[in-house]
Amino acid sequence: MNNQNLLATALVSVLAFTAAISHAADPLPSWNNGKARQSIVDFVEKVTKPGSPDFVPAAERIATFDNDGTLWAEQPMYFQILFAFDRVKVLAPQHPEWKDKEPFASLLKGDLKGALAGGEKALMEIVGATHSGLTTEEFEKIVREWIATAKHPATKKPLTGMVYQPMLELLSYLRANGFKTFIVTGGGIEFMRVFAEQVYGIPPEQVIGSSGKLKFEMRDGKPVLVKLPAIDFIDDKDGKPIGIQTHIGRRPIAAFGNSDGDLQMLQWTAAGPGARLCLYVHHTDAAREFAYDRESHIGKLDKGLDEAATKGWTVVSMKDDWKTVFP
Amino acid sequence: MNNQNLLATALVSVLAFTAAISHAADPLPSWNNGKARQSIVDFVEKVTKPGSPDFVPAAERIATFDNDGTLWAEQPMYFQILFAFDRVKVLAPQHPEWKDKEPFASLLKGDLKGALAGGEKALMEIVGATHSGLTTEEFEKIVREWIATAKHPATKKPLTGMVYQPMLELLSYLRANGFKTFIVTGGGIEFMRVFAEQVYGIPPEQVIGSSGKLKFEMRDGKPVLVKLPAIDFIDDKDGKPIGIQTHIGRRPIAAFGNSDGDLQMLQWTAAGPGARLCLYVHHTDAAREFAYDRESHIGKLDKGLDEAATKGWTVVSMKDDWKTVFP
Repeated sequence: MNNQNLLATALVSVLAFTAAISHAADPLPSWNNGKARQSIVDFVEKVTKPGSPDFVPAAERIATFDNDGTLWAEQPMYFQILFAFDRVKVLAPQHPEWKDKEPFASLLKGDLKGALAGGEKALMEIVGATHSGLTTEEFEKIVREWIATAKHPATKKPLTGMVYQPMLELLSYLRANGFKTFIVTGGGIEFMRVFAEQVYGIPPEQVIGSSGKLKFEMRDGKPVLVKLPAIDFIDDKDGKPIGIQTHIGRRPIAAFGNSDGDLQMLQWTAAGPGARLCLYVHHTDAAREFAYDRESHIGKLDKGLDEAATKGWTVVSMKDDWKTVFP
Repeated sequence: MNNQNLLATALVSVLAFTAAISHAADPLPSWNNGKARQSIVDFVEKVTKPGSPDFVPAAERIATFDNDGTLWAEQPMYFQILFAFDRVKVLAPQHPEWKDKEPFASLLKGDLKGALAGGEKALMEIVGATHSGLTTEEFEKIVREWIATAKHPATKKPLTGMVYQPMLELLSYLRANGFKTFIVTGGGIEFMRVFAEQVYGIPPEQVIGSSGKLKFEMRDGKPVLVKLPAIDFIDDKDGKPIGIQTHIGRRPIAAFGNSDGDLQMLQWTAAGPGARLCLYVHHTDAAREFAYDRESHIGKLDKGLDEAATKGWTVVSMKDDWKTVFP
């Protein structure tokens, strides 16, 4: 074999090997073949193919994901609320007045229903009391320690094991195709950031969420940021496109949610020019996860389901479209 | 030459060529050799060298830059104020009442001093009137058109030509070393984002700034975000570390400013563990740019200069440390 032939042979081998790798590995192994999977793959191929009329430069490939109910489970209640409940128990000795004060009194007696009877106001009181008065670093440490051992009340799995395997694959698939993936959650931004990088591969600067006000102050000559008990921003419904504009400043081309709280984010995404992917995860799998939509108190999906049908958005049936739910 | 030798020779050539490229190109050609330049290079080598006790993983290499006076000029006044003044003239026909109302009346007569006599309150009124009532897309289009032709009142150069060449090199040098570069400006986030990518190579999601409140609404079935005349966040002084925490959620390891408005950002950066680079650009060059510090109304650098001396932060003298100021 002469030198030229040797080089040509080597080159062909390398190319063949590369092609084999890219064809062999299914990027979405937990997704059944079906309309939902196909709509994702079609979209990604369209926006990444140079010369395609729908081609989008990598810098503009922004994909935004709701978290609760979209990337991990949210039943029987948002996991951050479980955190807040646990914190109430830890903090109770410092708050003797909680014994006679709702919603804390019921919570400390183990009466969840009683504690939640006060509705959103009661929840906000619990979150306010447990998420403030700390520096950002103290809070991060507490969340980090809690999430390392917290278990789901029904499945007894670690909460970080309650993420959806098909969505982890989708995040990786998008990133492998040059997308920048963001979380846009109604949950707390400081809470989510503690584990988003480890669990989802999403760095803190790509997490958008609800937030409380912060105060800069000097303690013993060292600057700290103190979490105040005042709401700064609620990243839900109308807040989601606003949070996206504030943090990203660029309209997503793909958005993923599971509830009416995500509807405005999907509308905002859909309204841009060119190819768009708007996707709802529909909780249809009572056997492997939970089944709920129009009547649910948590993750209600009603208007969104109608609008998805009208607009032709992708609706993923967990029961039919996913081979596996949890890793 | 046998096959093995051929491959070895090719490999050696490639390696030699790569080494030649990386050694030949000075990443900071507009910086004079001196303490300032050396402190930058030492820091970058320290945090990027695997095995070094100061090594920082790429994901944590966050560098934050003030804009006005740090990346581009800010004299005789912030360029965004020039934009607001131009907008007042454009909008005047729709606001006949401005003829008798300060600060607009003075401004429309060309009396800048009179217009600015009302201090910060007058400025806020002008910014409020010119930066709201539009959708985010309308505002972006107006800024884009304005910045394409706006000239500096003294030098008559395009405003985007009033950026500092040494700082452009510094941004590129940091990015080439795995840093993620952010702008943290007291100026408007929506204003800056329009040209930050083109001028500085910084995408919109890496621009943090002051902001007004936004409102999501449907217009003819299409969602828009409307800029309201209410302040949401002032990204200056204490606001800078707060803006960094809200948008990045990770403490920078390097921060660059030029005024007391950047002091808290530098303090926050310096207070983290491991190697840190805190740098002030000191305006010492009346011939090539402007000379001002402790007594200036714009970009006052007083406490910061003292703290830089005490803490051993890097202070760049534009006159002595920069070979070139503008591109």
